[in-house]
Amino acid sequence: MAAGLLVVLSGPSGVGKGTVCRRLLQSRPSLQLSLSLTTRLPRPGEKTGREYEFTTRSRFQKLISQDAFLEWAVVYGQYYGTLKERVEKSLGEGTDLLLEIDIQGALQVRRRLGEAVLIFLAPPSMEVLHRRIAGRGTEDAALLRRRLEAAQQELATYHLYDYLVINNRVEDAATSLDAIIEAEKCKVSRGARPPDLEVKQR
Amino acid sequence: MAAGLLVVLSGPSGVGKGTVCRRLLQSRPSLQLSLSLTTRLPRPGEKTGREYEFTTRSRFQKLISQDAFLEWAVVYGQYYGTLKERVEKSLGEGTDLLLEIDIQGALQVRRRLGEAVLIFLAPPSMEVLHRRIAGRGTEDAALLRRRLEAAQQELATYHLYDYLVINNRVEDAATSLDAIIEAEKCKVSRGARPPDLEVKQR
Repeated sequence: MAAGLLVVLSGPSGVGKGTVCRRLLQSRPSLQLSLSLTTRLPRPGEKTGREYEFTTRSRFQKLISQDAFLEWAVVYGQYYGTLKERVEKSLGEGTDLLLEIDIQGALQVRRRLGEAVLIFLAPPSMEVLHRRIAGRGTEDAALLRRRLEAAQQELATYHLYDYLVINNRVEDAATSLDAIIEAEKCKVSRGARPPDLEVKQR
Repeated sequence: MAAGLLVVLSGPSGVGKGTVCRRLLQSRPSLQLSLSLTTRLPRPGEKTGREYEFTTRSRFQKLISQDAFLEWAVVYGQYYGTLKERVEKSLGEGTDLLLEIDIQGALQVRRRLGEAVLIFLAPPSMEVLHRRIAGRGTEDAALLRRRLEAAQQELATYHLYDYLVINNRVEDAATSLDAIIEAEKCKVSRGARPPDLEVKQR
């Protein structure tokens, strides 16, 4: 059985990673969303075990000391991370896994798992990103400024990724992501081969 | 303007390259089929300027001596080739080009144009390929045996390609090809970038 594909979707905060992920998961049910752990509080409507596994700072720090994370990052004072064991289990079972993580985390995955597929989700313009971050309305003014500055710096890291997808329309971005996964599965370097290659011995 | 993508579809004779190509061209009208030159006679229903540009042996040999071909091959005593100038013109204009060629030709393109995307179309099994080649009915018995032997040898070259697609159902194979093209266009290594990357100078 072929190992599952680890697909990492990242991009600046506010670019719409979550929305695009949900759309992608609808069109490709075999893809499983990896659940991140976080110490931040749930936003209205968020539930533990769905968007994130919400946890305490002390448990998170204990897991760090146990080297339990494939990647972890601190974003605006809150911890986010992906448990190594869960990822390895899914991939080993042949399940394709989608990680929706921030840029610090994505680059850790790049270093640790060279075979991961890294996709950068970019906004159609800085203006659009500005409006999306401001429109979220859950942040105070100082945090908003910091987010915009961070977003510009984050955009400059796109060249460290395998693919870049522009989130102009959610459907189009999800279609591109789906195509990337389909194409990766056809790669000879990932083990794609004819079903019953029987070459005559001469 | 980004250069067009050169997509090479190849695979053993009888695997169904032509049918899959036609389906792909329907779903992706921006993709242009590169017209090969050949010295073989048109099959029933084939028209010059559509399936191939049918030409004479002496003209073909003159073009070879002028180094006019990106690739050319002799298959069962007939010449097939792709004119370099036409390919360069299309790619330079940003047009994505599809080459449906045999394995000898595909490997020449690999050597000459490293950025070409090489896709190997494989049959779901040797049995199916056998039936397809026999079913074509345009070949005599000796030619059929040679084709089958050649097909087995050709299948063993799949690892020289970037992608492998199994032609089980034509629609599925065409969808995979379309996904590969879509994904290649999102590759950062091919120049995909955010539309207006303005990074603050510090």
